[in-house]
Amino acid sequence: MSNFPKLGILGGGQLGKMLCQAASEWHLPIYVLDRDENFPAAPYATVFQHGDFRDYEDVMAFAHGLDVLTIEIEHIDTRALHELEKTGVKVYPQPAVIDLIKDKGLQKQFYADHGIATTDFQLFGSKEEIIRAVNAGAVQLPFVQKTRTGGYDGQGVSVIRTRQDLEQRLLEGPSLIEDLADIEKELAVIVARSATGEVKVFTTVEMEFHPTANLVEFLICPAALDGDTDGRASKLAVDVAQKMEIVGLLAVELFLTRDGELLVNEVAPRPHNSGHPTIEACATSQYEQHLRAILGLPLGDPQLLRPAAMINLLGEEGSRGPTRYQGWMDVLAIPEVHPHLYGKAETRPFRKMGHLTALGDTVAMARQRAAQAKSLLRIVAAE
Amino acid sequence: MSNFPKLGILGGGQLGKMLCQAASEWHLPIYVLDRDENFPAAPYATVFQHGDFRDYEDVMAFAHGLDVLTIEIEHIDTRALHELEKTGVKVYPQPAVIDLIKDKGLQKQFYADHGIATTDFQLFGSKEEIIRAVNAGAVQLPFVQKTRTGGYDGQGVSVIRTRQDLEQRLLEGPSLIEDLADIEKELAVIVARSATGEVKVFTTVEMEFHPTANLVEFLICPAALDGDTDGRASKLAVDVAQKMEIVGLLAVELFLTRDGELLVNEVAPRPHNSGHPTIEACATSQYEQHLRAILGLPLGDPQLLRPAAMINLLGEEGSRGPTRYQGWMDVLAIPEVHPHLYGKAETRPFRKMGHLTALGDTVAMARQRAAQAKSLLRIVAAE
Repeated sequence: MSNFPKLGILGGGQLGKMLCQAASEWHLPIYVLDRDENFPAAPYATVFQHGDFRDYEDVMAFAHGLDVLTIEIEHIDTRALHELEKTGVKVYPQPAVIDLIKDKGLQKQFYADHGIATTDFQLFGSKEEIIRAVNAGAVQLPFVQKTRTGGYDGQGVSVIRTRQDLEQRLLEGPSLIEDLADIEKELAVIVARSATGEVKVFTTVEMEFHPTANLVEFLICPAALDGDTDGRASKLAVDVAQKMEIVGLLAVELFLTRDGELLVNEVAPRPHNSGHPTIEACATSQYEQHLRAILGLPLGDPQLLRPAAMINLLGEEGSRGPTRYQGWMDVLAIPEVHPHLYGKAETRPFRKMGHLTALGDTVAMARQRAAQAKSLLRIVAAE
Repeated sequence: MSNFPKLGILGGGQLGKMLCQAASEWHLPIYVLDRDENFPAAPYATVFQHGDFRDYEDVMAFAHGLDVLTIEIEHIDTRALHELEKTGVKVYPQPAVIDLIKDKGLQKQFYADHGIATTDFQLFGSKEEIIRAVNAGAVQLPFVQKTRTGGYDGQGVSVIRTRQDLEQRLLEGPSLIEDLADIEKELAVIVARSATGEVKVFTTVEMEFHPTANLVEFLICPAALDGDTDGRASKLAVDVAQKMEIVGLLAVELFLTRDGELLVNEVAPRPHNSGHPTIEACATSQYEQHLRAILGLPLGDPQLLRPAAMINLLGEEGSRGPTRYQGWMDVLAIPEVHPHLYGKAETRPFRKMGHLTALGDTVAMARQRAAQAKSLLRIVAAE
């Protein structure tokens, strides 16, 4: 498109797909690199390049001729990105920021070094080290263990409450442990920061987790918070983004403790599950905002125009095979319900197959519509 | 996508593109037939089939294996569509309805036969016949002449006010002439009717035309009407859709005369320029609504959630060549402004290169934002 830059995305999952959809409004050409032409972004990318975004050579070859490179997942090998950045390709978020965030140990250390409130933590090289520390009385139960790298969608997190958990549930490899926060609510705030330093922040959302799958089950927007807490949440999230000097989106997950403290749990340097409702509910979606930030365009108005509730559409427990949607017609009969399907050909238990945003005059109405949709739609394997 | 039907669209222009974008939310596979891989819909179609939707053989070959076929333009040869309908392919809108609408003579006759208010008209076989009728005193100046077929985007319409116009401006071929209505406002109402007979109607919009290009320049939603007139406009539009028994969208253009009468000007059996603001402003966009209607799904909630103003982004007068956007950054700095670019590689004077919808707390605010954007953005040929 004449005077637009060429933009590449590492990763062709649902976040990549939704970036492509946002880009389609401006007919912006998008190049996507991933391993499988059946991945969600493939039909909506201008060019879908087959390759592995974890592979140095594949990334270097992919980036040839592109002006701007971004990611939809932070669990990548950033060596090629550092190399490309040196040659003048704009890589946003910056490889150094990705390195910082994808290692939860470095991420926590960053908060400690920059005066950003987070749960107390300690780093360990192996699970044996943790056991020794507990046995020596240096660590008290209960605690949360998180692997330093590779955690995603509830993977890489283990809650250790008892001696039995300590024997059976500790995860292998370098990890951190942190205090089990006394959580009243889990919140998320998405901040956009552009190459010019302009910053805009989306409305705080509140997350409820599925009791067993450790995935967000229900997300409401705006979060039910008093004005002071809400203001502090936004301010804290902006503070993290500015201190990291990220270019692009930063999704900041927060704990609100029972005594009113706000703690940074973790961050993601990209569009985020908790930002899906921005597509229908906000003046600018998180996807368009990310494009604006990394392309050096003015950031869009993030204001929430309508209360929203979002559910992830997960593959049914115990069902695995070719995807089939049940109850689709009934879901579409509910007003202001927007299902998004990612086109994954195979369903698996708790796999993210899509999401659904419901709007309403009030949060309660939006939530009731989302809950109704949830009760009607099943994603199962075809028989 | 597992249990979804295979849908084909005849035509790969901007309306086809926006149908593809709507379908992308559900990851619905879309097959598009058109002559040029550089057309707007091509990057967003699941399969873009090169061919001519006016060619019988091309349409028959394209439709092989598809379950549902629709159009984004009514100026097509419907012979193949009639043939396909007989073999059980669902063709929506129905070929008989397309035949009726694409001939403005038949369309007007339909209104006359079904008691639908429209301007008085007469049919003529050639421009010479019209001249003879004027000379014989059977037709009075002024009048509007419209060619029976092929009119589009202001083409095929001529206003004849004087003897000189009669000599110089009459169009060739079969045409109709109608009274020059004493127009206070031009309105449009989009109705959706599904295969089950369910009907939903979008909010009435008001159109302002460019003084020379005979294209809609400014569209505001909702139209400034008293409740009675608004209700009559909706009712009239629904009446036309029901009497035509169309399946899909019907865009009904209306004249509101200075004495408060509502007259049907013409209709289009597809998504319509006047429905672009539904993308951001309504609970369901016209594009999604069309998909729902032709796929036999429940129709979506059409309610207007926010006042909107829309402008067409036209190629600058006197400029022709490779497209270049000027003022893009400034436009993106205006809140709640949503530009849509169609990706047309070549600009021409008054060519529809995109559109832009602005939202606001009030129509006045939305309109002011759209006007500001209009003053900033230029689409010119690269030098």
